[in-house]
Amino acid sequence: MSDPFVIIGGDAAGLSAASKFARENPDGDVVVFERGRWISYAHCGTPYYVKGEVDRLTDLLSLSPEAAEERGIDLRREHEVVAIDTDAQTVTVESSGDGESFEQPYGNLLVGTGAHAITDPIPGSRRDMAFTMHGLDSAAAVRAALSPSDEAAVDTDIEYVDADLVEKYADREPPERVAVVGGGYVGIEMAEAFHAHGLETHLFQRSSHLLPPFGEAVGERVADHLRERGIELHLDTAVSELAGGDSVETVVHEDGRVSVGLALVGVGIEPNTDLLSETPVELGESGAVAVDEYGRTTAENVYAAGDCAEDRHAVTGEPTWVPLGLTANRAGRAIGQTVASDPEPVGDVAGTAVVKALELECGRVGFVGDESARDAGFEPVTTTITAGSRSGYYPGGDETTVTLTADRGTGRLLGGAIVGRDRAAIRIDTLSTALESNLTVAELERLDLAYAPPFSPVWDPVLVAAKVLRGELD
Amino acid sequence: MSDPFVIIGGDAAGLSAASKFARENPDGDVVVFERGRWISYAHCGTPYYVKGEVDRLTDLLSLSPEAAEERGIDLRREHEVVAIDTDAQTVTVESSGDGESFEQPYGNLLVGTGAHAITDPIPGSRRDMAFTMHGLDSAAAVRAALSPSDEAAVDTDIEYVDADLVEKYADREPPERVAVVGGGYVGIEMAEAFHAHGLETHLFQRSSHLLPPFGEAVGERVADHLRERGIELHLDTAVSELAGGDSVETVVHEDGRVSVGLALVGVGIEPNTDLLSETPVELGESGAVAVDEYGRTTAENVYAAGDCAEDRHAVTGEPTWVPLGLTANRAGRAIGQTVASDPEPVGDVAGTAVVKALELECGRVGFVGDESARDAGFEPVTTTITAGSRSGYYPGGDETTVTLTADRGTGRLLGGAIVGRDRAAIRIDTLSTALESNLTVAELERLDLAYAPPFSPVWDPVLVAAKVLRGELD
Repeated sequence: MSDPFVIIGGDAAGLSAASKFARENPDGDVVVFERGRWISYAHCGTPYYVKGEVDRLTDLLSLSPEAAEERGIDLRREHEVVAIDTDAQTVTVESSGDGESFEQPYGNLLVGTGAHAITDPIPGSRRDMAFTMHGLDSAAAVRAALSPSDEAAVDTDIEYVDADLVEKYADREPPERVAVVGGGYVGIEMAEAFHAHGLETHLFQRSSHLLPPFGEAVGERVADHLRERGIELHLDTAVSELAGGDSVETVVHEDGRVSVGLALVGVGIEPNTDLLSETPVELGESGAVAVDEYGRTTAENVYAAGDCAEDRHAVTGEPTWVPLGLTANRAGRAIGQTVASDPEPVGDVAGTAVVKALELECGRVGFVGDESARDAGFEPVTTTITAGSRSGYYPGGDETTVTLTADRGTGRLLGGAIVGRDRAAIRIDTLSTALESNLTVAELERLDLAYAPPFSPVWDPVLVAAKVLRGELD
Repeated sequence: MSDPFVIIGGDAAGLSAASKFARENPDGDVVVFERGRWISYAHCGTPYYVKGEVDRLTDLLSLSPEAAEERGIDLRREHEVVAIDTDAQTVTVESSGDGESFEQPYGNLLVGTGAHAITDPIPGSRRDMAFTMHGLDSAAAVRAALSPSDEAAVDTDIEYVDADLVEKYADREPPERVAVVGGGYVGIEMAEAFHAHGLETHLFQRSSHLLPPFGEAVGERVADHLRERGIELHLDTAVSELAGGDSVETVVHEDGRVSVGLALVGVGIEPNTDLLSETPVELGESGAVAVDEYGRTTAENVYAAGDCAEDRHAVTGEPTWVPLGLTANRAGRAIGQTVASDPEPVGDVAGTAVVKALELECGRVGFVGDESARDAGFEPVTTTITAGSRSGYYPGGDETTVTLTADRGTGRLLGGAIVGRDRAAIRIDTLSTALESNLTVAELERLDLAYAPPFSPVWDPVLVAAKVLRGELD
């Protein structure tokens, strides 16, 4: 009998791979080692759990351990892989339950170790009442910290919640003023969550715009909207310390200090690759694991996928690191298929991302704005337009702002961003599809897109932007 | 001085062409002859005017006569072109104002005569209180007929409304029970409008499904929804007569009779081509004017665009007739550019269409279902799936039904349809873009589409459908 398919990490990439493998090769063995208690959870849902729109942590689980077992997956939670021997084709596993350690041979190995939130650049980020949003336990802790001490917002009877952590925060009175450090996805989503709890919310962003990968037009509209709704923005403001005693008490920044009862740090994530440092598995320039179009690393029979791995960019064909949910699921599934039977490419990434900022919907894809496109070797031209989301006479529409970037030499679309209240985010899929199909701006302009007064004007905002940009390319 | 660019018809195609021409060639002359009083109005908005969501008829005007003149367009309303001499390059024009007739030479000619609603298959369709929805005057008449006689719902002081027609209906008490004949776009939209007025609404459809071009899955969901909301559906029911005296009193159908006070006939439209019968301008198999990729007809210096003309289908490359708003605007604009300066293709059509059915959003593109695809020469495979529009744990989503059709031999996407309550219609643009980019189902499955809990699950319903269809293609 051959050695099993061994998977390190029981989240999106790992369990997608295990599920696909088990379905395609029911006689094969697949073992998943997960160092924590949670598996397969929707990281992107945690801000909405904190906000209260999602009732229970378990609502965020895509797959229960029981369901994984039913699929034929040998799932070992609280089992940490601490070493990989790519010559012997074994991994060393430590069980945090019984403290025992053992060697596990593998036929194929998938590294799906994910990523972790960066905190260290901000001194004091490890104080009590300072949090990152990376994992369900931290989400539970933040929700507990926001809830009145006589209200059990978090059900510690749920099997795997870290009850000690939750209870530590559940007994406190909730803060009145909070800080969010970082104006990316997590920062914006958490600011929305805190604002929904009625807290005085201060958002600190080091650079001059929120959501930098979405370009300036989106950043400015989101900033205006957040301010209108009463969120205090501190742009161009680097936080130097989260000061206090045991708990965070003060955000110290270059222009002053703000007293807060809670701080959420969302300044980015890093791939978990420490485990690979003693192996021949190479990392790419991004610091994530280098892989080919089938998710294969530089070591034989070793694959990597999800937030720890690079992808190939749809526009440049070059490696890139875009740690998001769909690509993790998709790459895992493709690798499960490849290991089980026929090779299946993991697919390129276009850098598609969408985020909700209170009432605003934001989307982006590819290279947005001249700077990033120039860095990628193009001669970019960028335009930004604003157009209605519906026919002007039809109620309920909103001004939709579209930024498009194209290459002057070839006329090829390089990227774009969209923001507005009415069906703005989902419109980015038009641009993603166009980008992955290598359309020029002239071809984009001639697309036969939907028109009906309740949903879109005759010229969809995407078409208006293409029309204007094409004029600038000529 | 050269002869002017003459345009027949002052609606979407004609005025788009005139505007673009005037902008690109400010020294050139452009004359638009419009036989009616209205120009450049949003036909697709008329059901919402009847419904009451749009207040005034003039809200539906895209361009006022004054604004057209300001753009440098010589606009002649109430001027009907009654003959074309392609040898002499002249048109014969009759003015309904002063009854005079004259010859107008042209350098280039655009035929943008539009289409008219079919009524004749239903005897009695010309009785009072029987209407089609093709033109602002009929919209005004229907709205007047629905409003209490002491309420002036239609402002007859508006410059060009047919005051006699409106007043004829404004004096009547509104009906309590109404019939809609035809279950296409217009029928569905008008049923929504009547239902919103609290009327007992009967919808008659000759075939077994509503919205046939959207496929059975959409038709069935729309039918269920309309029934739930209290609209009485008569499927598989051909109407043989709208009986009565001066006014419609009874819908006579094969299985019985229904007494009604108003009937709306929406059984399709036909291109206006009578003017061309004595000319060498050829019609295509569809009955609309045959054109090449620049909108040129078979007669020299004669173009055609909009509802009277064919287009080239993006999937087959063959002529097709899809009389919709975007393509009329786009083709007109391209022809304006071609006549003024550089040749610009009018663009292919993918058959993209979206329609609102009360709370449901419906979209379609290309060939939906095996029958139409087989007729076009493909070996089709079709699948229908239902998946959530948002992450399952996030509130406000809806089950989204997606039908995809592909060609077995090549794996190429041929078409699709989508229905659901939550951002369903606009998702058709993903499929339109994929279709016009000639993507295979495997390529569609690997697209990097948007994912964020409020807007889309990890696997967008479009991706779920692609995944399932690909399995069926293998």
